[in-house]
Amino acid sequence: MTEPFRTEVGLANTERITLRGHDMVSNLVGQVSFTQGALLAVTGKMPSPGAVRVADAVLVTFIDHGLQPSALAARLTYAVAPEAVQGAVAAGLLGVGSKILGTLEETGRLLAAVAASVAGGTPEDEAVAQVVDAELAAGRRIPGIGHALHRDGDPRAAPLLAVAAAEGVATDEIRRLRAIVDVTAARTGRALPVNAAGVSAALLAGIGVPWQLQRGFSMISRTAGLLAHIGEEAQRPVSPAIRAQLREMSWLSEGED
Amino acid sequence: MTEPFRTEVGLANTERITLRGHDMVSNLVGQVSFTQGALLAVTGKMPSPGAVRVADAVLVTFIDHGLQPSALAARLTYAVAPEAVQGAVAAGLLGVGSKILGTLEETGRLLAAVAASVAGGTPEDEAVAQVVDAELAAGRRIPGIGHALHRDGDPRAAPLLAVAAAEGVATDEIRRLRAIVDVTAARTGRALPVNAAGVSAALLAGIGVPWQLQRGFSMISRTAGLLAHIGEEAQRPVSPAIRAQLREMSWLSEGED
Amino acid sequence: MTEPFRTEVGLANTERITLRGHDMVSNLVGQVSFTQGALLAVTGKMPSPGAVRVADAVLVTFIDHGLQPSALAARLTYAVAPEAVQGAVAAGLLGVGSKILGTLEETGRLLAAVAASVAGGTPEDEAVAQVVDAELAAGRRIPGIGHALHRDGDPRAAPLLAVAAAEGVATDEIRRLRAIVDVTAARTGRALPVNAAGVSAALLAGIGVPWQLQRGFSMISRTAGLLAHIGEEAQRPVSPAIRAQLREMSWLSEGED
Amino acid sequence: MTEPFRTEVGLANTERITLRGHDMVSNLVGQVSFTQGALLAVTGKMPSPGAVRVADAVLVTFIDHGLQPSALAARLTYAVAPEAVQGAVAAGLLGVGSKILGTLEETGRLLAAVAASVAGGTPEDEAVAQVVDAELAAGRRIPGIGHALHRDGDPRAAPLLAVAAAEGVATDEIRRLRAIVDVTAARTGRALPVNAAGVSAALLAGIGVPWQLQRGFSMISRTAGLLAHIGEEAQRPVSPAIRAQLREMSWLSEGED
Repeated sequence: MTEPFRTEVGLANTERITLRGHDMVSNLVGQVSFTQGALLAVTGKMPSPGAVRVADAVLVTFIDHGLQPSALAARLTYAVAPEAVQGAVAAGLLGVGSKILGTLEETGRLLAAVAASVAGGTPEDEAVAQVVDAELAAGRRIPGIGHALHRDGDPRAAPLLAVAAAEGVATDEIRRLRAIVDVTAARTGRALPVNAAGVSAALLAGIGVPWQLQRGFSMISRTAGLLAHIGEEAQRPVSPAIRAQLREMSWLSEGED
Repeated sequence: MTEPFRTEVGLANTERITLRGHDMVSNLVGQVSFTQGALLAVTGKMPSPGAVRVADAVLVTFIDHGLQPSALAARLTYAVAPEAVQGAVAAGLLGVGSKILGTLEETGRLLAAVAASVAGGTPEDEAVAQVVDAELAAGRRIPGIGHALHRDGDPRAAPLLAVAAAEGVATDEIRRLRAIVDVTAARTGRALPVNAAGVSAALLAGIGVPWQLQRGFSMISRTAGLLAHIGEEAQRPVSPAIRAQLREMSWLSEGED
Repeated sequence: MTEPFRTEVGLANTERITLRGHDMVSNLVGQVSFTQGALLAVTGKMPSPGAVRVADAVLVTFIDHGLQPSALAARLTYAVAPEAVQGAVAAGLLGVGSKILGTLEETGRLLAAVAASVAGGTPEDEAVAQVVDAELAAGRRIPGIGHALHRDGDPRAAPLLAVAAAEGVATDEIRRLRAIVDVTAARTGRALPVNAAGVSAALLAGIGVPWQLQRGFSMISRTAGLLAHIGEEAQRPVSPAIRAQLREMSWLSEGED
Repeated sequence: MTEPFRTEVGLANTERITLRGHDMVSNLVGQVSFTQGALLAVTGKMPSPGAVRVADAVLVTFIDHGLQPSALAARLTYAVAPEAVQGAVAAGLLGVGSKILGTLEETGRLLAAVAASVAGGTPEDEAVAQVVDAELAAGRRIPGIGHALHRDGDPRAAPLLAVAAAEGVATDEIRRLRAIVDVTAARTGRALPVNAAGVSAALLAGIGVPWQLQRGFSMISRTAGLLAHIGEEAQRPVSPAIRAQLREMSWLSEGED
């Protein structure tokens, strides 16, 4: 007989509903914030108040960034399939790829590599240099720094760093991120400041969210933003405007299949 | 012990790979067309040559219909997440909702209702009238007729009807579809011709694809069309043009998160 | 020239990043919780503290409910496509259909119908009766009451009601939900208690989340829960156990394509 | 004014519907098979009869391979959200990741690298050796060879090779694939035979489907297979059996949210 599988995330039966062992009814609903619950679910442990504040800051950061392709994809999908909101949200979330919020994950991966190296005995400055050099040698850009839009520095980085400093959270990770910035500047001759994705990766690592789940963590935020766009689409649709533009640009008429 | 579940769709083990009982290696690969294989998978039976020709006609019809919202959603998703083509295709497919290819399913549902009624002893003309009246009474539009773009009649309907006539396929379903058109014209005072979705539903029903799967059948086609759009996006991206339009229309700058 | 489209959800350019007009950097990041930000995004208005507590309670409720099909779908997808976490999350979210969290939406729709009727001058008890009778006449089950698992009453309903009562939120909606319960009991002879989905719909309506977006609101929660499952899948995969069960049950061997 | 964008995939207006310039109504519907239409859409050119036979063989190969995780994910999603078939299909397609059909794409990428090198003047045997060595040096497995299930050789490879040989298609690509096999055997000491994914990549490249679209091409097939599974799920659901197994394995009861 196959060995039993027992999930530790949560259970539900006629007697109890638990999330990571905490009773949903008597200890969680109405007693903790969603962010506390989300961190509990993902990390397995009830978070400290400081961790919650930091997670809140990260989650707020990524709710929305304008009418991005993913928001547009969600709105277009909703316009043609309004009977399935989850399809529209899913379509928008599928745009959470490497070009956007995936840089969070890439920075988290680098920080994890540094942490592993340090844990193995390598001095931190060497570990950082090795990790940066490996990326550059592989022809990859260093994530977490610079920004296509905010060329004078991503303005969201500062408040994120401020929260972490105030709560004494992710000090190692932030120090290492700054070191990555310095080494990269030395190697490439271009001094680029940290961006919100890079700082968020450091913060999330500092509060126990493994790098592999960081991109997913930002999807929690983005779901809220996509929902807002879908709600607006129902009231003031952008898709006719897009289609009108396409009509003007291309030999296309609006039609159904 | 739970009763064993055995799928009849297909099996694969070290000795044999089968699709609906047919040996993939010795009987299918290189010996049947994809359309034959698809019909075998979905209906459970090896289709007749006439059924294959009709299915081919339906599938060709729905490959593409211009730069539709679903194609655009796929292209936008690919533009921001190029490392996962299946995410972009899935995003596009999620737009296969009620407003576009779902009318296929709605027509199929009506035809199935007529068929069930006739099988239960009701004369065909009465069955058709009852089904149409029930839809109108519920405030629903009759699917399968008329077309937002092709107001003089969907030009794709004619070749579809021609294939079915040539193969002697779906004669009952087509006759009933025409009856639906006539009753609707009588009730509403508007004579609208059949469209490609309506004819396709009749044809698919005639070759054994149940109405609940007809929308999915058109997704097979649409996957090919979306793939074509994604391929073009990689070479000649539309997303910058869309974002430029958005920039001109709205206070938005191109940016990353 | 096409009329300009301007989204009110959020904007981002080189000078400012705003969410519903609030400056992200100076007013939101590090200063509001994610739940506050999510409500601001979705409703367009900064929520009251009471609304935030209620929204937190609802969001916590739906984070997880055991190893459900949607969690399993997410885990299976992650197991075979680990390089795209968003695909796995999206796959899980696509299971947020009518059978699970969609009942939230259905209850919300009924409550909105009652509210519209009352706003049009109909006495509340009549409005409730009409709405219930219309559902029953259409052969639909009344959503928001009863529960397949918790037959003595969904234990999550009580803490949700307690938060709303403590905050004085959604009093009209809760009163109407209770009226729906009573009318249904009178009509069907079965007295079923409210469940968490029903209460949540009333609460969300009370804090300004329109019924059409309520299902999406629960997706925010569920994203966190799916992420937890995906994280566990990476450490302790359930998919081999599932496949082993399938092997024992059916003539299937584990294989790749 | 933004430069106009004109898609070459297909157009639709009141006068004409075209696919890659071919008139849908007068030249395609009822006159070409779906596989011909799909190749026309994806490659931009009407395919030769030999290319169609080869594409048919590849597409048939990947329709189904038993109750795989992606089929299970589709069935589970359908079970809980039956009102949106496209969500269930999309959920299943999201499992088309690196571990399954993605090896098609990886092999295609290697073959494209060899082709580019040869086009640049490198002798073929050197080009093959360089590409293989680069993969092994990067710690990657060579795709397209070996198979977890069919350890004596993927039985589907033979009929695929036979079709290509009969049609004189993809001779360069197959020769290079065999060379990859030989070099890998020499380097690793393990002689693994080609598998269906590897051969398919060679065949698709030979008929003009670029490697970046090969994974998507297999999604066309898989859509048909997933549809078959969803159809069976509606008649004979597997999800209760899965949930029963989970119940026996883990402290879980069936429930709704």
